[in-house]
Formats: sequence, C-alpha cells, structure tokens
Amino acid sequence: MELRKDPITTSWVIFEDSETEPSNGGECLLCPGHEEVSAGIYTVPYGNPDWQVRVVPHLHPLYRIEGDAMRRGEGLYDKMRNLGAHEIVVETPQHDLQLSGQTPENIAQVLRAYVARLADLKQDRRFKYITVFRNQGEAAGQDLAHPHSEITATPFVPRRMRYELRSAQRHYDLKERCVICDIVRQELTQEVRTVASDDRYIAFCPFASRVPYETWILPLYHHCCFEEDLNSWDSQLRLARFIKNVLLRIETVSPAYHLVLHSAPNTNAKFEQAGYWKTLAEDYHWHFEILPVLTSKSKSYSLKEVYYNSMVPERAAKELRAAVIRSAAESS
Amino acid sequence: MELRKDPITTSWVIFEDSETEPSNGGECLLCPGHEEVSAGIYTVPYGNPDWQVRVVPHLHPLYRIEGDAMRRGEGLYDKMRNLGAHEIVVETPQHDLQLSGQTPENIAQVLRAYVARLADLKQDRRFKYITVFRNQGEAAGQDLAHPHSEITATPFVPRRMRYELRSAQRHYDLKERCVICDIVRQELTQEVRTVASDDRYIAFCPFASRVPYETWILPLYHHCCFEEDLNSWDSQLRLARFIKNVLLRIETVSPAYHLVLHSAPNTNAKFEQAGYWKTLAEDYHWHFEILPVLTSKSKSYSLKEVYYNSMVPERAAKELRAAVIRSAAESS
Repeated sequence: MELRKDPITTSWVIFEDSETEPSNGGECLLCPGHEEVSAGIYTVPYGNPDWQVRVVPHLHPLYRIEGDAMRRGEGLYDKMRNLGAHEIVVETPQHDLQLSGQTPENIAQVLRAYVARLADLKQDRRFKYITVFRNQGEAAGQDLAHPHSEITATPFVPRRMRYELRSAQRHYDLKERCVICDIVRQELTQEVRTVASDDRYIAFCPFASRVPYETWILPLYHHCCFEEDLNSWDSQLRLARFIKNVLLRIETVSPAYHLVLHSAPNTNAKFEQAGYWKTLAEDYHWHFEILPVLTSKSKSYSLKEVYYNSMVPERAAKELRAAVIRSAAESS
Repeated sequence: MELRKDPITTSWVIFEDSETEPSNGGECLLCPGHEEVSAGIYTVPYGNPDWQVRVVPHLHPLYRIEGDAMRRGEGLYDKMRNLGAHEIVVETPQHDLQLSGQTPENIAQVLRAYVARLADLKQDRRFKYITVFRNQGEAAGQDLAHPHSEITATPFVPRRMRYELRSAQRHYDLKERCVICDIVRQELTQEVRTVASDDRYIAFCPFASRVPYETWILPLYHHCCFEEDLNSWDSQLRLARFIKNVLLRIETVSPAYHLVLHSAPNTNAKFEQAGYWKTLAEDYHWHFEILPVLTSKSKSYSLKEVYYNSMVPERAAKELRAAVIRSAAESS
C-alpha cells in the first residue's frame, strides 16, 4: 500500500494493489469467542472477558503503525508509505444490534472508547489527523457485518478537513467569531433546517447539503476538540441520548449512512508552517456529519464536479422532525 | 431549482426539490422522427432532415438560460438561481451505437459540435464556465438511453476546476512552466502509466488516480482552450481517432464511465478579481478525464474524505495497453 498526492488538487489517494476483496469467511471474528484473533487495544469493562465495547486493530488495515512515512518525490510527484493507524471499535458483543438500537449507556461507552483512542493516538506526533467514522449498510460500504466504527490516524490532514480548517480560520480572521457558531446561531433563528435540539446539542440539515437528509450533530457551545470536550461520563451520556434520537430518525428514511467525526487536527504533530493552528481553539468547532446513502436518488446524476441533490434540506429536516420513531420514550 | 454555496467549502450545490425522477416514457425522444420535441440548436449536416449529429436543449435541464443569477445572501449563506445552459449532443441517429463504435468521421463531427457550442456559449458573459461531459452506462448515471453527451454552462467555476486552475497558476508563478506540460514530460519519460500516444496526443492513467483505470487524454503540445485548439477538421479527425482507440480500451474493463472536459473558463465573463486569469493561456492545459465506474471495486470502501483506489495506475495502464480491442485496424 502507498499514499500518493495528486499534483494538481494536492489531495492524497491511498492505493492498495490487490484484486481480492477482504473477506472474513464464514464466522464473524468480531463476535465474542474470537478474542485471540486480535489483541484488544481497549476493553470495557477493563479486563473482563464479558466485554461490552472493544477496540482492536483493523483486520485488513489501510494504514500501518510501524516506521516512518518516508515521504519522497518521484520527479514532479509525491508519495509516502501508508503510515498510520486503522482500528475497529466493536460497539457491542451482539452481532445484529446496530448503534441506534443500543441503550444510551452503551452508546456512551462507545463514545468513551472514541475519546480514549483519539487522546491516545494524538500522543503520536507522526499523525496529523485522527478521525472516527461509521459506515452502516452495504450501500455505505459496511464491509464487516458486526456493528462497528473505525478510527484512522493519518500522516496528513485529509483535503476536505484542510479546506474546512482554512475556511474557519479565514472567517475568524475577518470576524473574530467561529463560523460554525455563526451557523448554529442562524439555524436556531431560522429553525427550518433543525432536526432536533436540546440545551446542549443541535442536529440540522446543512444549507448546502450534499445528499438528501445530510445531517450534522454539534454542541451549541463552542469547542474545537471532541475528545477534550467529551471528557466526562455525564457529557458522554447526554451526547449518546442525542445521537440515538437522531440516528433513529435518519433510519426511517435510509438504513445506510456514513457518519464522520470532524474535530481539531493533532496539534502535537509537526506541521510545515509554524503557527498554522494559532487560532484553532477559537476558530474551529467539532461536529459529526451524517451522510445517508440513498442509492435510488443518487444514481440519477453523477457529474462529479458539481454536487447534485434532489431535496432541499428544509424538507428533509421537516420529514426528520416529523418522523415516527419506534422507541421515542427511551431515546429522548 | 436553486444553487447554494457551502459556507465552509465554498462549493456550489444544485438543488432540485422533486420526488419524481425524469423519465422519457416509452419512446426515445432523441431518435429521428421526434425533431419537433425540441428545436435543434445545432445540426449536421445543416438544414438536412437526415441529421447525423444534433444539439438540443436538455429535456429536464438542471440550468435555465433566461434571466439573471440573482445571487443573494441569506444571513451567512449565499444562493442564486439555477441560471445556465444544459444541452444534449445527440451523437448519432442510431439508438444503440455508443460513441466508441462510431466511425472516426462521425466522432469528429461530435467534437466539432462541442467546439461550436463551447464557442457560442462563451459569448454569454453570464457564464463563467462551460463544459462537456458524457455519462455512459447506468452505473455512471446515463439517464437517456440514446448515445449522447451533455454540455453545461454555469455562473460559477466548479470547485474542482477552481482548485485545478489555481494550482496550475501557482506552479506557473513558481516555475514559469505549465504543470500539465511537466506531467506530460514525466509520463513520456517514465512510460509506465501511458495508455496510448501518437505525435499529437497522449492518454495516461494519472499518478494519483482516483478510481481504477482513470485515464486522461490531452495534447502533447501546450494549449489552454479546447475549442480554440480544435478549430480545424483535420485536428478534430485526429483527436477522434485517438479518443476512439482509448474508449475501446477502457470498455474492455468497464462499459460504464464518466468523461469530462477540463478546459479554460470563460474569459469573457466578469470575474471578482481583475487579472485573475492573467497567465491562463500559459499556465493551463485542456484535457479529458475519463473515470470508469466499476461498481464491484468501488463499493468496498467509502470514506468520503480520502479517495481509495484498489489498483496502481501502472498496472491499469499496462492492462489497457495490452487490451485486445475489436476493430484495432479501424481505430488506430
């Protein structure tokens, strides 16, 4: 495997030169009873064989943790080794219980696992960016059937994050305010794109949603860094309840989705420009982006240069607000 | 329909708020005998009812040509009307004859239609960018069965093009050379990613290909603007032969693909910054990008923030070079 940089867009592409797709054969290796396959990096409850949440190295990792990135040129081009980390958060011992169906307490344990792993991986100065994502459903590329999230640490900041961070910094330079705080304020005033909110979090369909039912979840207050913000059981439990509610709504329109954490890059890492992140704590605001995968709607138009969306977010948000979700009492 | 700007990435998203998918019912409205459905914008041979190539307005256009963009704010957000043009190039009267199967002469007529429409649409100063693309196969979003290309004119430069143009300008500022000429020179030296070449054109799989078998077609000599470069029948015919050869190779691995023209923006349009395109003629280089759609390979991993590719372009190019294509004599 190798990472290559597009000389024009400066985006990194990961290459795996194989014709075979990863397959875990018949039995699920993430179910209890297969703990010997991969050593647990993190287990809850600690040291208890009857674990509830477990973090293990990915069985077919995109990134490998050993050694140096060996970033080098090849004439005009840039490449490096696939240095990084790729971990799986096994969210529950139960093979068929998706995240939205779990208790708020268990979801909070999953969030706590994210926090622990993000904090730990940020100790490694080789990694510039660490994130968590969750592909649910075959249409969204879920490749292991057992409910899980993935964590990746990379020696570069992914292109979309880089643009987002720069854009937030530019807004701060101009206004001395966080752009995402400004967005939250406008969403709270206009209300038409809000999916759910309480005194701590808001979920809304962004103004320029890329896909139908795109939804962001974020704190109403300002904080740039997920794992520093979510450092208490109380905050983990409150966010867990909120996420559960939003996911149940999303699943009434699409069982398949991507969920991606956007949070501050690793400020322990060495960056090219000194002072690159000088206002990061003030200018950036962590959030989850949920991108439902509606195959029938997204197929109709695929010009890659311009996003096409068949629904305005006001209507999407309205439907999600009105969605009848099964365990409403438990999830609110 | 409406265009909205993502306040963070500054990318425009087009919205169509409808639940029904465009459908052309039973009969194909692009076949001969339905000329009354839409007035021809361009016809070859001119005025002859037995046309060979025809350009018509799109039956379900994403953009509408009348009026003003009415670009306006809504608090923090920006939006505008879906001003623009959306045309269909009907490539042949034959319903089942894809572009690669047509004679070089007919393909040259299709290229001539592109040239004529691009030149004409650039007279309209409201349009900042005009492009041609071709979605072939259901997996690539081909929505009308009859072989056709599409032309769009937009009141903005699409995000990927903007980055590409800026990146080319930065390279030129630094080196006083065109970045794409530099890439061509390296590809000709290294040879490992070349798919085909003659004394005028090259086709290669780019170093950081986003999908397996991604292929670019471009002139070996420097020229920023497709329709100014391809202004003679001789050049149209030579490019037609070259494209036919490359498409036949692509189709041995994937019947479905996107083909997109990247060419200079409309310098007649009014841009925000004066002198924005001051070195455009020297720094940019037109090209076609072909993105095959291999559903089985692309499904396995869908983290949107980093491109994932299961094949190095050296191997892709090697396979394409070695591909046994049916009408080799005719297409070379």
